[in-house]
Amino acid sequence: MPDIIRIALDAMGGDHGPPVTIPGADLALQRHTDIEFIIFGDQAQVGPLLDAHPRLKAKSRLVHTDVAIRMDDKPSQALRYGRWKSSMWLALDAVKKGEAAVAVSAGNTGALMAMSRFNLKMIEGIERPAIAALWPTLRGESIVLDLGASIGADARHLINLAVMGSAMARVLFDLERPTVGLLNIGVEEVKGLEEVREAGAILRASRLPHFDYVGFVEGDDIGKGTTDVIVTEGFAGNIALKTAEGTARQIAQYLRSAISRSWMSKLGYLLARPAFQALRDKMDPRNSNGGVFLGLKGIVIKSHGGADPEGFAAAVDIGYDMVRYDLQEKIVQSLARDQDTDIQPLAAGGAGS
Amino acid sequence: MPDIIRIALDAMGGDHGPPVTIPGADLALQRHTDIEFIIFGDQAQVGPLLDAHPRLKAKSRLVHTDVAIRMDDKPSQALRYGRWKSSMWLALDAVKKGEAAVAVSAGNTGALMAMSRFNLKMIEGIERPAIAALWPTLRGESIVLDLGASIGADARHLINLAVMGSAMARVLFDLERPTVGLLNIGVEEVKGLEEVREAGAILRASRLPHFDYVGFVEGDDIGKGTTDVIVTEGFAGNIALKTAEGTARQIAQYLRSAISRSWMSKLGYLLARPAFQALRDKMDPRNSNGGVFLGLKGIVIKSHGGADPEGFAAAVDIGYDMVRYDLQEKIVQSLARDQDTDIQPLAAGGAGS
Repeated sequence: MPDIIRIALDAMGGDHGPPVTIPGADLALQRHTDIEFIIFGDQAQVGPLLDAHPRLKAKSRLVHTDVAIRMDDKPSQALRYGRWKSSMWLALDAVKKGEAAVAVSAGNTGALMAMSRFNLKMIEGIERPAIAALWPTLRGESIVLDLGASIGADARHLINLAVMGSAMARVLFDLERPTVGLLNIGVEEVKGLEEVREAGAILRASRLPHFDYVGFVEGDDIGKGTTDVIVTEGFAGNIALKTAEGTARQIAQYLRSAISRSWMSKLGYLLARPAFQALRDKMDPRNSNGGVFLGLKGIVIKSHGGADPEGFAAAVDIGYDMVRYDLQEKIVQSLARDQDTDIQPLAAGGAGS
Repeated sequence: MPDIIRIALDAMGGDHGPPVTIPGADLALQRHTDIEFIIFGDQAQVGPLLDAHPRLKAKSRLVHTDVAIRMDDKPSQALRYGRWKSSMWLALDAVKKGEAAVAVSAGNTGALMAMSRFNLKMIEGIERPAIAALWPTLRGESIVLDLGASIGADARHLINLAVMGSAMARVLFDLERPTVGLLNIGVEEVKGLEEVREAGAILRASRLPHFDYVGFVEGDDIGKGTTDVIVTEGFAGNIALKTAEGTARQIAQYLRSAISRSWMSKLGYLLARPAFQALRDKMDPRNSNGGVFLGLKGIVIKSHGGADPEGFAAAVDIGYDMVRYDLQEKIVQSLARDQDTDIQPLAAGGAGS
């Protein structure tokens, strides 16, 4: 375990840029005093903010660049003007060169994914990256992937997602054999997308030393925490994530208007305020901010673009944990073992049938 | 508008059968005294329950059958033993023969869909049915479809969903031109599934006299009520629905445990109880129970299999509204108009490109 965790920061990413990323990094540093940052961004914008956060400044090295990736550019555009020199690229490049153990960015997801693939390259045996995130559940937390790195998935990719997600669960949740479910509509084996059924059949038939495949799960199983890992293709995964966020916001809004309806309910709210605060913390999407890009030769954390400093700090925290518990190495090891021994031959047979 | 709304009831469907469907029908009758029921089911089970609900008994005709579709049979199995004689088939057949205006069942979704297609047949120009439901939003309610009738959708099917969903919105929400969004990951035109992008391009280029296509929407737009109608393919739609239900239950559970943490928060809860009751009503999935099968020559309502009497009554209510406001005829008219004039030629061009 390294003494110092070195984190490369794309200070310019996100809807707000340095006014969020710099205070956010400072918050994370407050919790983890063994972090050092390499901060990539515009000196004119970042410098004064660092001056205002002396604790962070003391643990950071600022690398100036005046190229920043815009939030709504296509990946191809971003690569064209941002390769070699944007704050996003340079943060990834610090990971590539081994100067930092992880890169964190709140920037344009498509551009970050494209640059990550281009610069860091994929792990042997993985063709497509995935975005994994921690999802708060009634049992604690689960890992859900893919949340939108790629659209559509064949059985092979779904199995790779199961292997990567379970490696992440072993590391983060300290479990010997995490449980894995495939997201489907209906739990019967005859239901759902052809690719999902095929992946399910292969996983069921395989000897899986590193995780426990429990079968199909449905959308409402995510919040229940039915399995430690939930595997899905990126289109459905992204829609599930956004729908859950929307539902949580909707209910919070209902709750606010319900409480403000009468002075009695307002008084009740005052008395129950600690309970509401606990609820708010549980529901706060900032606490689970931070998607982990999996499948790359290096760790990259994507913060929500609209995150505030607290949310951005949560994304930095996740990057910190990934390094602390040596996730990257463990994923590579798991993939090598699982692909050598158990799943690969069956997967090949299944795909050809 | 008919004086009497005649509803065919599959009394045996659902996880619980007659002990839920009969009291549920009675609740619906209490709200709508102009309903008459034809009840299909096992005399030995249904008879005593009807005796216990004299109001319902007075407005019902019981047709005995001892064949009931099991909840976990495959559609093909269900058709084999249940065609011509099961309570589900007979309820649909009553719609086919014009004896009832709508059929309501809490039975096996796949079997109900298969029998509906087999018996009622599809509307001219529609190849695949859809399940639409009312989704509570911050602005009121939206219609979301397809929630799992078919998996995968090409651009043509998505456009048919937009036409059918908007017809339903015009009728139920009394709107001249409902707004329609296509569910996608990201709102930019370059993002998402090929079929969704193609459908978006066609809708954008079409003259649409009956609805207002606003573009792509994301999962969190559903709860916001960004559009009156949200169109998606059945796999993603089902996952969105189940994930939202799971999130709502999860938050309700958080709220319960937060409140029971201390006597002060319990007291606060007591004071704010009317507010919580209002919230509970808003969040109660029973109030929006009832999926409408669209695209068939006849109206079929699917209740959640696990519904209680209150939930089943909500499904009957939806069937009632569909008949009261003449939805079926209006969908057929809309489809004929839209397909004759505006979208068909462009859709054909788009599909060929």
